[in-house]
Amino acid sequence: MHIYTKKQIEAALDVPALIKKIEEGLVYYAKKQTITAPTSFLTFDHPRADIHIKSGSISEDEYYVVKIASGFYENPLRGLPSSNGLLLLFSRDTGALQAILLDEGRLTDVRTAIAGAISAKYMAPPSVTTIGIIGTGTQAREQLYHLQFVTPCRKVLVWGRDEPKAHLFAQDPLFSDFQIGVAKSIDALAASCNLIITTTSSHDPLLFAHQLKQGTHITAVGADDGEKQEIDSSVFDVADLIAVDSLLQCSKWGDLSHAKNKESLVIRELGDIIEHPPNRAEHAITLADLTGIAVEDLQIAKEVYSKLREIGS
Amino acid sequence: MHIYTKKQIEAALDVPALIKKIEEGLVYYAKKQTITAPTSFLTFDHPRADIHIKSGSISEDEYYVVKIASGFYENPLRGLPSSNGLLLLFSRDTGALQAILLDEGRLTDVRTAIAGAISAKYMAPPSVTTIGIIGTGTQAREQLYHLQFVTPCRKVLVWGRDEPKAHLFAQDPLFSDFQIGVAKSIDALAASCNLIITTTSSHDPLLFAHQLKQGTHITAVGADDGEKQEIDSSVFDVADLIAVDSLLQCSKWGDLSHAKNKESLVIRELGDIIEHPPNRAEHAITLADLTGIAVEDLQIAKEVYSKLREIGS
Repeated sequence: MHIYTKKQIEAALDVPALIKKIEEGLVYYAKKQTITAPTSFLTFDHPRADIHIKSGSISEDEYYVVKIASGFYENPLRGLPSSNGLLLLFSRDTGALQAILLDEGRLTDVRTAIAGAISAKYMAPPSVTTIGIIGTGTQAREQLYHLQFVTPCRKVLVWGRDEPKAHLFAQDPLFSDFQIGVAKSIDALAASCNLIITTTSSHDPLLFAHQLKQGTHITAVGADDGEKQEIDSSVFDVADLIAVDSLLQCSKWGDLSHAKNKESLVIRELGDIIEHPPNRAEHAITLADLTGIAVEDLQIAKEVYSKLREIGS
Repeated sequence: MHIYTKKQIEAALDVPALIKKIEEGLVYYAKKQTITAPTSFLTFDHPRADIHIKSGSISEDEYYVVKIASGFYENPLRGLPSSNGLLLLFSRDTGALQAILLDEGRLTDVRTAIAGAISAKYMAPPSVTTIGIIGTGTQAREQLYHLQFVTPCRKVLVWGRDEPKAHLFAQDPLFSDFQIGVAKSIDALAASCNLIITTTSSHDPLLFAHQLKQGTHITAVGADDGEKQEIDSSVFDVADLIAVDSLLQCSKWGDLSHAKNKESLVIRELGDIIEHPPNRAEHAITLADLTGIAVEDLQIAKEVYSKLREIGS
């Protein structure tokens, strides 16, 4: 049994390999070749915290995964990151624990961002003019960082409720290759961007149909618990194609759960879009609604574990 | 963060302290002062396996627990134990992982047996004449071992589908203080015993009302997933008092889920029985239906972790 620290794990992140592995996982999921338990939620007050526990495997796999990811929202007031957690890989053959990945929530952030990059890879317009990032937190950074691997566009507008944080984001040395401007409003951002990523924990819709340019793709990663919402129902009404990581989860907790006219929507699971990429019309508006699924945790844990063993950590 | 092996954990098991701690947890649960997620189940074929993931905390607690316990049923054919798993203790203050208890399923076995011992402590007749153990596996041994702490009775009858295994059980050096006989049938066992523990993974009822002596208490620990059943509905009909560890879980997965006349039953949660012990009538028939709850995992993990730190492991 192997135990790895966050530092070891971070040294073993190979983004192109992870994109490939998570794409494979999404395809297995869409083909119903995975075995997953419903996500377990724990919610605490004093201090305020959410814990998500995801678990599962692919039908014919060597491993199963259990992933615990927490958000302790008062941690930043004490100089601690809000995210924490770990991943456990077990043998599907004997049940023996194979690896403990003490990622402190990092792999959840990364696989979420990679699912966003995969959505953009298959759904964004062929020529992305400006990337719009709504939100200025950890996931906003992870999303932009991982988009580098799927689009050559380096022009970005960022918007956040807290404008100083948006400026900090724009000046982040991680993004020295980008030209990043701060948008005064979501209206202004949407007017200039044809690839928009929403990464907030908003409980009210931020993005509306009337704000969107034709030919825009939106990836929404914030809503994952039934109370959060970033995308107004009107966006679903005008979208030509909607991708979801999990139809089951997005119907319950995603932005999709707030859509009013579900029966008239064209919805496909992301794994199905990977297998059968759509022909994007020039003016099409598309949307990916992501809630995070256990098979992504499984695939990132397997890939990282394999890399860690390869480099002899 | 501390990591402990099964061997270290076994050296830190203090049964009287664990009984006290798990009683406290059951009381918190019955008073609805716990926060728990529904149990997650994963089920695999080739090889056949079940995984149960339980998680939770007490309202005002220092820790939350996540417990993974697996049964890989083809392991014994290869000389491996079927049970495996681990417990994780996290800070309720920051979400940081505090301890990894690599118990390989042992603490689940122990806390299940302790819940059985607690049931006997509060519900068994004052004079237990003979203990009846139905089943001959690991949990049968754990139950009998832990009953020593709550009853002076050392006379036992054991019954198993596999008679040679019942003889091995009777001769187990762990039970050198006991006089253990092998019962030819469940009928014969029930005719002699006034404290009966069922510990099988049967899918069909084994114990029926007509077999029972007056003044018998039964603790049923096998049924925990909706398909398993040890106790016939007729036993519920004649029982004067039924205890459940969790009304919610037992209604879904316990033997109670198979009871036909639920509305006429007197059912109390075990924690409520601990707080307000019943006056047992001499001829009463009583039943405890146990499915295992996260607060037991939390309490055993906390007690063992505290002991491990005390002894400086």
